[in-house]
Amino acid sequence: MQIAMIEDRMMRVEDVRPEYLDRGTFFGDGVYEVLRSYNGTIFAFEEHLERLANSLAAIEMTGVDVNHIRSRVLRAFEQAGIANAKIYFHITRGSGPRDHLPGKDLQPNFFLTVTELEEDTRLKKEGVSVSTYPDTRWKRCDIKSLNLLANVLAKRDAERKGCWEAIFVNDEGFITEGSSSAFFGIVGDKLRTAALTANILPSITRKYVIKAAKNIGLKVEEESLTPVQARTAAELFLGVTTRDIIPVVKFDGQVIGDGRPGRYTQMLIEEFRKFTG
Amino acid sequence: MQIAMIEDRMMRVEDVRPEYLDRGTFFGDGVYEVLRSYNGTIFAFEEHLERLANSLAAIEMTGVDVNHIRSRVLRAFEQAGIANAKIYFHITRGSGPRDHLPGKDLQPNFFLTVTELEEDTRLKKEGVSVSTYPDTRWKRCDIKSLNLLANVLAKRDAERKGCWEAIFVNDEGFITEGSSSAFFGIVGDKLRTAALTANILPSITRKYVIKAAKNIGLKVEEESLTPVQARTAAELFLGVTTRDIIPVVKFDGQVIGDGRPGRYTQMLIEEFRKFTG
Repeated sequence: MQIAMIEDRMMRVEDVRPEYLDRGTFFGDGVYEVLRSYNGTIFAFEEHLERLANSLAAIEMTGVDVNHIRSRVLRAFEQAGIANAKIYFHITRGSGPRDHLPGKDLQPNFFLTVTELEEDTRLKKEGVSVSTYPDTRWKRCDIKSLNLLANVLAKRDAERKGCWEAIFVNDEGFITEGSSSAFFGIVGDKLRTAALTANILPSITRKYVIKAAKNIGLKVEEESLTPVQARTAAELFLGVTTRDIIPVVKFDGQVIGDGRPGRYTQMLIEEFRKFTG
Repeated sequence: MQIAMIEDRMMRVEDVRPEYLDRGTFFGDGVYEVLRSYNGTIFAFEEHLERLANSLAAIEMTGVDVNHIRSRVLRAFEQAGIANAKIYFHITRGSGPRDHLPGKDLQPNFFLTVTELEEDTRLKKEGVSVSTYPDTRWKRCDIKSLNLLANVLAKRDAERKGCWEAIFVNDEGFITEGSSSAFFGIVGDKLRTAALTANILPSITRKYVIKAAKNIGLKVEEESLTPVQARTAAELFLGVTTRDIIPVVKFDGQVIGDGRPGRYTQMLIEEFRKFTG
């Protein structure tokens, strides 16, 4: 007999429910997306679905119909009836006995939540502190995968330092991105942010921030900042799906500018509102 | 109301069972171990528990009593009554709403299986083929964590090439280890394997292989091989908890030696038997 044990309960392996045999848990073998709505409309929905398709292809997960995912998301979003909602979902390769090689005919597992977003006026008005952390992540951060332990450890480190976000610095000494955000600086009349080739997530917020920056006449330089450059930048901010732009007013303990959200950052927040209706 | 959706079923977030909210799935926020028994005795049990403690500490997971884990493993193993068993277990940080920052007072989740090991005489007699794959993993492979997507992708690549195992090659062009094994070569009268500083798992099988090698008079050089060196090595083999030593007879299509398990490899298999009773 083959035995399984969940906490202190023993059972036959055959009696284990599939949710305990999820490859998402065994290997992080799955991908996810986070969306948000503004006043009842999901922002950049198609772009998120496109990125999802890329993530699925990158982990060679076939058999997921993105149209089906779209309708599930819409159905749950409509049912929830939350105007400013955060929508999280993940898709794993399926459940089966633990083996690096997935069994044939696995059925993907889908899990989604729709939750109400908290008001972020204060965050936007006061800004946040961030601290740096070594970028120990894998080399495929372009895939929005469930392998996020490095991000968790980084975020915990930031929390211990009284910071809202951890900013990854790679072995070459360059800032890549935040543990769950894109990172931006204003240097002179330029918006600076890491290039997509720097092993970062192709952030959709990043794309719209760049668009907003061009709209307000900033030059855009896709080149990573170093922590030293960040500390002396005129302005810093984060891009996060659920909160679009969050000003950074302290970087590794160093006050940025006059310690309040910068002028361009505020202009970008305003400009971003035009996209979100 | 906050909504959750599992496959096509919608429910209130409060009604979602904790196994769907496992941080193991959301983030791979957990660690695992694989043990085996030989003829009714678990091999190197204490060393596995020691490594578990190190992994738990490395991900800052407190509140797990390793003595408690030991008794659970023993209880399940005894109940299963399998002489040559594979014991897999993982511990995640617990279940809660998805947030990089774990909630306070999370209860760790424990999951274990005991399964019968298949006979591996043929594998040991005939050896296996391996193929190389870029080491895209994170920088903390010393932690036996649930972030294993790179390993899954590597193993799938090997399978497509008709190989039994994928061998990771890092950016510097050195072999680190297999996707679920340690990697060894015999070069002259030396056993060669990557140093523990090469971002590899502190494999317990590796430790015993080194011991066995010294016992049979081999010198031990903890220095990574390159794929070119591996192709021309006299002998190659893998170290895996569940199968101790598995000879490698083909490396990226190149036949090793005369295409059969090498003399030293066979001696090491014999010598290893002395440890396992």
